[in-house]
Amino acid sequence: MSLELRKHIEEIVSLTDEEFEYINSHFKLKQLKKHQYLIQEDEQVNNIYFVISGLLKATFNDLNGKEYIIQFATENWWISDFQAFYNNVKSITSISCLENVELLYISKEDLDKICRESHKMEHFFRVKNSSGYVALQQRILSLLTTNPKERFEQFTRQYPHLGQRLSKTIIAAYLGISRESLSRLSSKV
Amino acid sequence: MSLELRKHIEEIVSLTDEEFEYINSHFKLKQLKKHQYLIQEDEQVNNIYFVISGLLKATFNDLNGKEYIIQFATENWWISDFQAFYNNVKSITSISCLENVELLYISKEDLDKICRESHKMEHFFRVKNSSGYVALQQRILSLLTTNPKERFEQFTRQYPHLGQRLSKTIIAAYLGISRESLSRLSSKV
Repeated sequence: MSLELRKHIEEIVSLTDEEFEYINSHFKLKQLKKHQYLIQEDEQVNNIYFVISGLLKATFNDLNGKEYIIQFATENWWISDFQAFYNNVKSITSISCLENVELLYISKEDLDKICRESHKMEHFFRVKNSSGYVALQQRILSLLTTNPKERFEQFTRQYPHLGQRLSKTIIAAYLGISRESLSRLSSKV
Repeated sequence: MSLELRKHIEEIVSLTDEEFEYINSHFKLKQLKKHQYLIQEDEQVNNIYFVISGLLKATFNDLNGKEYIIQFATENWWISDFQAFYNNVKSITSISCLENVELLYISKEDLDKICRESHKMEHFFRVKNSSGYVALQQRILSLLTTNPKERFEQFTRQYPHLGQRLSKTIIAAYLGISRESLSRLSSKV
């Protein structure tokens, strides 16, 4: 029984104890240590993960081995290789732990099942997906229109607590700027 | 009665004639001419739009008046300022017509109503939202990891028919590269 998951779902739909117990029975617990991988490149991905505690990064490595950070995930966030998960293709990203992590996960089959059986859960995931869409659109706008300085300021404003849990190298990879540029910027803030 | 909308919805869920008639009754038709605006910056946005025919662009103008293209929309795509629509804030983007356009639109209230009344429609929009999320994640990856040449090749591969309907200036603004760079790249293809 996960109070975190129930609280998270009930921000959008209210559930009876029985309803939540039934939904919860489709989730399993996974614990990983810092540096362990949740998903590696070129895998089948059959689960999405809800973060109870800890911090993860989703990354893409280009042919030269350069790492780009697509997404972070921390408490109350959902993470997976969503392209692999939804489109049934191999993962092109890796997801690994920046801290010890506790996750709940549900398979594609069970996600579709609880959405089919429970209109409330279908609604919950429709709303989560639309919020995710809006957040990604903001990130695209930020990548297109801002310079490194503005991007760093946006990031620290948007995720004040996350900044303190991440190394400068990792923040730089997320913002698509060099470690050196970030050091110059952050020393001025 | 829109055959296009019915066909589009039935790619994901099947509907009886009565079900479709009821859903369809919540949509209204809008026609706009090339260059007209569908949404202007700093407006309330209460509708999402399904494109029956034509081509639109969603743009963001920075403080210096430089235009960035966030999204195109053509036949069978949905468009709006999704942040303004879902979060009830003023639009920060503009949407205008690159061709004469025929659209069907539905209000936020009616979208929520048909999703509440019809589990099938809630499912349809959950699936559409997840596909949209995956497409945006691919665009972020492309913006982070590719150089202008690769980005242009990706674009022409992904949207072969769209390229022919767009000017070079507009494709360049979408890819975040200069008009001159694009001319050099496209003359080599």
